[in-house]
Amino acid sequence: LGAALLADLARLLGPDALVQGPAVREYLRDSTEMQGLFGAADAVVAPAGVEQVQALVRWCYERGVAMVPRGGGTGFAGGAVPRGGVVVSLERLRSIRTFEPELWRMQLDAGVTTARVHRTARESGLYFPPDPGAAEQSQIGGNIACNAGGPHSFKYGVTRDWVTGVEAVVAGGELVSLGGPTRKDVAGYDLRSLFCGSEGTLGIVTGAWLRLIPAPPAQVPVLAAYGSTAAGVRALRRVYGHGLRSAVLEYLDAGALDSARAAFPGGLPADARFLVIAEADGDPAGAEALAEELDEALAGEALRVWVMREAAERRDLWRWRGGVSFAVRGRRGGKMSEDICVPFDRLEEALELGEAAGRALGLPTCSWGHAGDGNLHATFMIDAGDAAEVARAEQAARLLFEAAIELGGTITGEHGIGLVKREQLPRQLGEAAMRLQVEIKRAFDPRNLFNPGKKVVLP
Amino acid sequence: LGAALLADLARLLGPDALVQGPAVREYLRDSTEMQGLFGAADAVVAPAGVEQVQALVRWCYERGVAMVPRGGGTGFAGGAVPRGGVVVSLERLRSIRTFEPELWRMQLDAGVTTARVHRTARESGLYFPPDPGAAEQSQIGGNIACNAGGPHSFKYGVTRDWVTGVEAVVAGGELVSLGGPTRKDVAGYDLRSLFCGSEGTLGIVTGAWLRLIPAPPAQVPVLAAYGSTAAGVRALRRVYGHGLRSAVLEYLDAGALDSARAAFPGGLPADARFLVIAEADGDPAGAEALAEELDEALAGEALRVWVMREAAERRDLWRWRGGVSFAVRGRRGGKMSEDICVPFDRLEEALELGEAAGRALGLPTCSWGHAGDGNLHATFMIDAGDAAEVARAEQAARLLFEAAIELGGTITGEHGIGLVKREQLPRQLGEAAMRLQVEIKRAFDPRNLFNPGKKVVLP
Repeated sequence: LGAALLADLARLLGPDALVQGPAVREYLRDSTEMQGLFGAADAVVAPAGVEQVQALVRWCYERGVAMVPRGGGTGFAGGAVPRGGVVVSLERLRSIRTFEPELWRMQLDAGVTTARVHRTARESGLYFPPDPGAAEQSQIGGNIACNAGGPHSFKYGVTRDWVTGVEAVVAGGELVSLGGPTRKDVAGYDLRSLFCGSEGTLGIVTGAWLRLIPAPPAQVPVLAAYGSTAAGVRALRRVYGHGLRSAVLEYLDAGALDSARAAFPGGLPADARFLVIAEADGDPAGAEALAEELDEALAGEALRVWVMREAAERRDLWRWRGGVSFAVRGRRGGKMSEDICVPFDRLEEALELGEAAGRALGLPTCSWGHAGDGNLHATFMIDAGDAAEVARAEQAARLLFEAAIELGGTITGEHGIGLVKREQLPRQLGEAAMRLQVEIKRAFDPRNLFNPGKKVVLP
Repeated sequence: LGAALLADLARLLGPDALVQGPAVREYLRDSTEMQGLFGAADAVVAPAGVEQVQALVRWCYERGVAMVPRGGGTGFAGGAVPRGGVVVSLERLRSIRTFEPELWRMQLDAGVTTARVHRTARESGLYFPPDPGAAEQSQIGGNIACNAGGPHSFKYGVTRDWVTGVEAVVAGGELVSLGGPTRKDVAGYDLRSLFCGSEGTLGIVTGAWLRLIPAPPAQVPVLAAYGSTAAGVRALRRVYGHGLRSAVLEYLDAGALDSARAAFPGGLPADARFLVIAEADGDPAGAEALAEELDEALAGEALRVWVMREAAERRDLWRWRGGVSFAVRGRRGGKMSEDICVPFDRLEEALELGEAAGRALGLPTCSWGHAGDGNLHATFMIDAGDAAEVARAEQAARLLFEAAIELGGTITGEHGIGLVKREQLPRQLGEAAMRLQVEIKRAFDPRNLFNPGKKVVLP
């Protein structure tokens, strides 16, 4: 297959579209590399535009060649790690097709990075709320594939809530527009939402329409450090109980703080074992009023409270928060980061069960994440080169997944199923719902060529 | 079939579950009755609970009997109008199963009315934003079936954005929970969203989990009247252009104002031919600041501006707004109300094309609706008893649908396809997307028994 396939693809798409040589390696991995996952592909291509994606899908679909769509490669579930077939990178589809600030909307190629969307919107006083980590690398197509979230999802929702249309190439190479710039649409079943979170298994997303909102003029983080998880969780509950609509509601546990403590702007109390990050936003007066209420709600039992009214403080805080994942990884060189999500009232139990899973397998464990959404990045720190340790981390992750299901939650809130959670999915969903999942996959991809073996595995 | 079917259903569900006698008539119609639509059914049942729905679906699915799920019967697309089969009313599933104000969430039966959700939330300082008309009659299951919107969808989104889980009985009688109280979930394809807007054609929704938010303490409507549509549309554009995040952005045209003018609290200027309704909400200081900005944006060319700071003024305004549809109907006894939705920048063209369609068929025409979302309730006023007039209104509606598609919009923003728009759907979606729609229907309903002939018609 190898050489003949490459020659065929060069003829089909032009030699420029082929990725070859040492660069190929970059296309065989995602963030799961730090838990030892690495792929193999028959070819790697980067089509020059939508028509090339169509030509490629038509060609592959006729010949039974598997396709693995790829965005920024920042995923945590192995969704972009190929197991053979053609890797299809969307990196050359990087135009913002239209940006109409006076209409609060943007139409763009799948390969535009999340950070560029943020920056472009901000320059016109607008705001695109989804803020997954690694925004400089991650692409909007990948954000759609995983239905990416982030801290501000607590108030503003996930990627799906900001996408009014998805353009995709489906089986056979046809181009479909599911939605568009129209803000409401109930004609037909909601295939646009169905593509959000489909992890490249229903077709290849080539473009999207986004809706934006006017940027909140003020954003004031309010942080509080606690001596114990229990005290921190009580504070989180008070934010809900007092009815405070914080823009974010994040937490870091003792292990995550230990990894990231040194870099915390201005330093943390030595006995801080749990940190809560809230944020008041809106017009300046409203944000200030909410910040004061958050201050009051978080202050009980707190070792210290910070109200960050200066833009520079806020920038430094979120830069630090963005580095937590890297700091944790730095501890042992590798990590396995999950993202179970449970009903908010089960948060403390989920935190305990995550720690218990690590203890049971003898792995250092920590967690942080989107507390208000019940979304935990429970993490097992490992040496990714040590196969036995990786196997133990996988076992710990299975305990964690069972705990999430037991608590009425989900095995993934924003990372997706990919390769690494596909065996757990049927257990979470149950037989009848799983059968419907399989039917959806079959309806869109009868030959099982779009990212096969990911997300929903055909029986 | 008739008598034997009734006897079978009485045995299966108990005689209490059968609706008989003159009451049956109420179950054969929805709001399309005012355009002459009326249905026929072999039986009407109101199951006592979820298990009875399961037993019924199992029974019907084995025997090839069609089922027409029914909520409050307030739809505008004939989605609940039976063409034979068993009408399944969810009215007896009316429990709020759990309401946890301190967790901002509610789990409830499909038959709970929208107004009850609003009231229950409000009594605990919480807010459920979707506000379709006829909230006292419409049920949450029906809201899910149509993905209902309303004025506040402009800022807050549609029903789908507030439903974290859908419980449904699917083919064969199995009960599935798609999502639940968890706020984020990307395990599996998003079948929860797929059910939102599915119009009872994929299964029968029996329950839901809703997320709520703290109620905004202040809500200040800002209205402005204009002498022409063009001046009003320019004002609407200024709200976008100034980046003002109004909670609603409604309009009424000259015809709608003529119908509802007499009841407007305090009276309207005699030369008002276009009314804009915006609303500032949030904490009191923020709402006041936004209200002033809205006042400024709307004031140019306005005949008059109202800033309604008193709760009583607001209540009267929205009561009046809720009566517009009835007032319009009162003009000629019947009406055909559509809900095309176009990109916001095409609003004025859509308004013109709606009027042109009425003119072309010699029908009095008016429109009002959710201007900020580009969602027009373009309405043709008719005598529903006059078959020739109904036929002319249908022709006018077809012109309107063509216009919506031409403008890059949709034939329905929040009412659904039902019976009345099913022939237009393939034209809007195109061949490839329509084929995927059919595949979805087949995957969920292989025997075509859930509300057959509605929304997506099998070829």
